[in-house]
Amino acid sequence: MKVVLIGSGSVATQLGLALQAKGCTISQVYSRNISNAETLAKKLNTAFITDISEIYMEADIYFYALTDSAFKSILKKIVMPEGIQVHTAGCIPMYEFEGYTSKYGVFYPLQTFSKNKPVDFSQIPVCIEASNFEVQQRLLEIANLLTQKTFLIDSEHRKKLHLAAVFACNFTNYMYDVASVILEDSGFLFEMIQPLIAETAGKIQNMNPYEAQTGPAVRMDEITISKHLKLLDKHPEFKKIYKLMTKNINKRHRKL
Amino acid sequence: MKVVLIGSGSVATQLGLALQAKGCTISQVYSRNISNAETLAKKLNTAFITDISEIYMEADIYFYALTDSAFKSILKKIVMPEGIQVHTAGCIPMYEFEGYTSKYGVFYPLQTFSKNKPVDFSQIPVCIEASNFEVQQRLLEIANLLTQKTFLIDSEHRKKLHLAAVFACNFTNYMYDVASVILEDSGFLFEMIQPLIAETAGKIQNMNPYEAQTGPAVRMDEITISKHLKLLDKHPEFKKIYKLMTKNINKRHRKL
Repeated sequence: MKVVLIGSGSVATQLGLALQAKGCTISQVYSRNISNAETLAKKLNTAFITDISEIYMEADIYFYALTDSAFKSILKKIVMPEGIQVHTAGCIPMYEFEGYTSKYGVFYPLQTFSKNKPVDFSQIPVCIEASNFEVQQRLLEIANLLTQKTFLIDSEHRKKLHLAAVFACNFTNYMYDVASVILEDSGFLFEMIQPLIAETAGKIQNMNPYEAQTGPAVRMDEITISKHLKLLDKHPEFKKIYKLMTKNINKRHRKL
Repeated sequence: MKVVLIGSGSVATQLGLALQAKGCTISQVYSRNISNAETLAKKLNTAFITDISEIYMEADIYFYALTDSAFKSILKKIVMPEGIQVHTAGCIPMYEFEGYTSKYGVFYPLQTFSKNKPVDFSQIPVCIEASNFEVQQRLLEIANLLTQKTFLIDSEHRKKLHLAAVFACNFTNYMYDVASVILEDSGFLFEMIQPLIAETAGKIQNMNPYEAQTGPAVRMDEITISKHLKLLDKHPEFKKIYKLMTKNINKRHRKL
């Protein structure tokens, strides 16, 4: 199967590597940024372009791994090839392809990717949506190359999954980042809390997060909370987060 | 070594089990709540009391695993035994023991505990503080039974560690909880994002969280952000968190 990657970010990188490892041919990489295009093409040992008019027309499938605005701008410029067109975004409706081609869909891996960290695709849920049954079957086949966890999910539901993922992943990672700043301020290495982070994430693999909640906010330990707020005097933005989180956790656990 | 546990929450439970597994004798458990006292005493196959005046006087060490206010109230009531007195709290200064005894300290395991989930202590940093060198040596010996990661840390620094832990663990877990509510609202099982949570936590074992940040906020994807905010119309409290987090992540990544 011949694949073209449109985009050169972390999703394009990890998806490209995973598909290649399963025997797909990555025929071409496109990015408007020449250095990014070249880097990814090198990793995949393939060709790259920075001008979308030079797109390879004979691929079986084209993956658009782009931001919302870049995606729309590419669609306006591209001379549409025959192959299946899919995007990988959580929050872009499938119908954005409408009018450009009839063979299209969505291939959304529910995971966080980084350019330089390989991921094990076998545990990643892949959410599929397709313009027709034939495309759907093809996308399921491709997804099944990578993972056993394939799901048929429409755009409205996918958007909600993506929203949940922003809380569980992006905001969570920002909490790690805030912790790292507080640790650094006090001369501690980030390593100090790595076991805690691992356990916090490990817990909810077998327990629901409501039950797993611990800390001063859930036990309404006001003395500790006020000590923490005092420590945050020089980080007013962290203090705001602390107050809002504490209020919400407290409310959540009083209500039920 | 004979140990008394004052408190019957998750810290007392997991610490008791871990010490017992390393050959310590748990001589007694105290809790003002009879059912909690009994449950923990059963787990440890030992005696329990609910009246602190009946405390066993011959133990080598007494662990106070209590909230700030319960700790202070017990100190006022207890007839102080000869053995070493330590508390396990991140945010209570060691000097709270002053005037009650001369052999005291802090034994703070930097981890999140649940009553029913056993933990591997060997990876847990234990932070020690002591009223004198002899107590310090004794506490280090006990900590070394459980883990290789022992640290001498004063009360001021421990408080900052605890604050970082609240962000990295308690607030993170609340982000999981919010995600679970959003998923449930849309008919998804929480399982759907468990691989994402595992990967998010796994990433920062080798990467700093600043570099690991992904998502619409860091790439300033305003179209996605506004779609997400619209989905949160019926959860105004989640919307507030979303906005605050997004603003902070955005600012953090523009600044550097």
